[in-house]
Amino acid sequence: MTEAPHLTFDLDTPGVSRGHLVVPGGGDRGELSLPVFSLNKGEGPRLLVTGGNHGNELEGPLVARRLIEWLPDAQTCGRVIILPVLNPLAVEAWSRNTPLDGLNLNRVFPGRADGSVTERIADAVSRVLLPTADTVFDLHSFGPTWEFPPAVITHPIADADLMAKTLQMAEAFKLPVTLLWEHDDTTGMFDTWAHSQGKIFVCAELGCGTVSAEALAVYEAGVRNALIALGLVEGKVENVSFRQKRSSQTLETHVSDGLKSPAAGIFEPRCSVLDEVKHGDLIGVLHPMDSLSAESIDIRAREPSIVLAIRSGAHVDRNEGVAFVARPLKI
Amino acid sequence: MTEAPHLTFDLDTPGVSRGHLVVPGGGDRGELSLPVFSLNKGEGPRLLVTGGNHGNELEGPLVARRLIEWLPDAQTCGRVIILPVLNPLAVEAWSRNTPLDGLNLNRVFPGRADGSVTERIADAVSRVLLPTADTVFDLHSFGPTWEFPPAVITHPIADADLMAKTLQMAEAFKLPVTLLWEHDDTTGMFDTWAHSQGKIFVCAELGCGTVSAEALAVYEAGVRNALIALGLVEGKVENVSFRQKRSSQTLETHVSDGLKSPAAGIFEPRCSVLDEVKHGDLIGVLHPMDSLSAESIDIRAREPSIVLAIRSGAHVDRNEGVAFVARPLKI
Repeated sequence: MTEAPHLTFDLDTPGVSRGHLVVPGGGDRGELSLPVFSLNKGEGPRLLVTGGNHGNELEGPLVARRLIEWLPDAQTCGRVIILPVLNPLAVEAWSRNTPLDGLNLNRVFPGRADGSVTERIADAVSRVLLPTADTVFDLHSFGPTWEFPPAVITHPIADADLMAKTLQMAEAFKLPVTLLWEHDDTTGMFDTWAHSQGKIFVCAELGCGTVSAEALAVYEAGVRNALIALGLVEGKVENVSFRQKRSSQTLETHVSDGLKSPAAGIFEPRCSVLDEVKHGDLIGVLHPMDSLSAESIDIRAREPSIVLAIRSGAHVDRNEGVAFVARPLKI
Repeated sequence: MTEAPHLTFDLDTPGVSRGHLVVPGGGDRGELSLPVFSLNKGEGPRLLVTGGNHGNELEGPLVARRLIEWLPDAQTCGRVIILPVLNPLAVEAWSRNTPLDGLNLNRVFPGRADGSVTERIADAVSRVLLPTADTVFDLHSFGPTWEFPPAVITHPIADADLMAKTLQMAEAFKLPVTLLWEHDDTTGMFDTWAHSQGKIFVCAELGCGTVSAEALAVYEAGVRNALIALGLVEGKVENVSFRQKRSSQTLETHVSDGLKSPAAGIFEPRCSVLDEVKHGDLIGVLHPMDSLSAESIDIRAREPSIVLAIRSGAHVDRNEGVAFVARPLKI
């Protein structure tokens, strides 16, 4: 019988608490202690903020730490729990998945108490932290080799009421893009599990390979806007601009909106995120690298749309995604 | 007895040739064919251009392909050989080192004919291509998790005459930075081997995580400037600007100019490359992630200098490099 996952402190303690979420050991390694911050100001919204779900997306942990610095002076009610790094093993390896078991934490929710370490982390979060919150912000980035605008994302939710509330929460970040993303691989996502438990869950994303001061400022302002909207802190909502483009667009993207590479090679982007493209506009060029006699292949837009994500600086296989486009959300 | 490495075409053929450098198979895998382009316009400089030495630095292969497109209309004399991807196994894996043997191609020169695949690639390049050239441009990038300005680099060379010629060649790129880099790990570099053979060898670097259109344009303009300086093509040298900063600085950095992390954690940059810093200026902040009670640690400049490289978006171990600074070269 393994020890159950637990917190090293009592969430009901008023004010600031700092401690750990203990993830029990298993056959593959000993127990893990994930640092947790909690600020309890009594009645009000109950928010859980997580970062470091994927180990090569580190804007989230940095923004979570900033939040921990200013929240004690700003929060007026409710309870905020912050777990800056969900998967320290992946973060230490700068790896999307956990090196020890090869698993993607964001595909194994709600986890398993007797599973491998990634499944045990998901189990601890699902059983110990998720039930304490009404709302969850999971702070991601888009990871290396992609460019992506600052955005808040949700996937379609069958429950229309929860869908509407979730979109409203996402738009409250006032980030350049709010995105309803029809994704073909949502089983085991933290999102999917939290939605199934009736929670409002949004996922923030952004990225361009490196962590810049500008990106962190944008991300932090978005989270602050959302805290104001929830009524947890007082203040004035700030519209966040990004590269002088029109901000606060609500977009949708479907599985069919992914552009795939027609061959193996190096993809060269020829447009930027948030560019508006017409049918036939050049999105990028695929350069086969196995022969210098092979022509480079143009990849063009199939219909009027907005470039949402573009692959950058990586070798791609045939049929691997190189871009996603989107269009204004019609509900 | 293994087959010797060889080209599938005759370099003395006038005009454009396209073919492969055949790297013989060994115990770990079969033979590799690396695409090679050659343009022979008779007497004149003999230049070798290589890219894809490290598999997660893909600006070089893209610039090499652009060069292959416009060189036939531009080159007036001499011979240019272009090998866009030195290490296709690493490029396909978007990995610095070769996954098959774990080796860094840029640390195994001059290679070994009976070694593992990375050593066999180095051997083929050293024996078949390097002897055909007087000058080598090896097109790198700084790789993910670092920000670095567009630069041409050489390491110190004992032969004063070759050192002077190499620095002159580097400055001819007119990139924002020409750098003399005292490096503590140069054994087995392509640079070191080429210098030992009396060749002028420079290494171009740049990077910020993603491959942007701006970065490619800067890189391509630098290579074109160098071809003009060599007399291989005609045209007007272009000064390449970068973020409105003063361009064409010649800098030096020493082993002691590396700033190391005082602890394990996530490094947050607080300055940008090419920023001028004074003693005590904030370079970045190290956020320990194993406890939320641990204070973040400021990392400050030790003396007046110019920020050359800054780590970004990665977890670092204690004593791992987070920044390099430099200062104007004094010869």
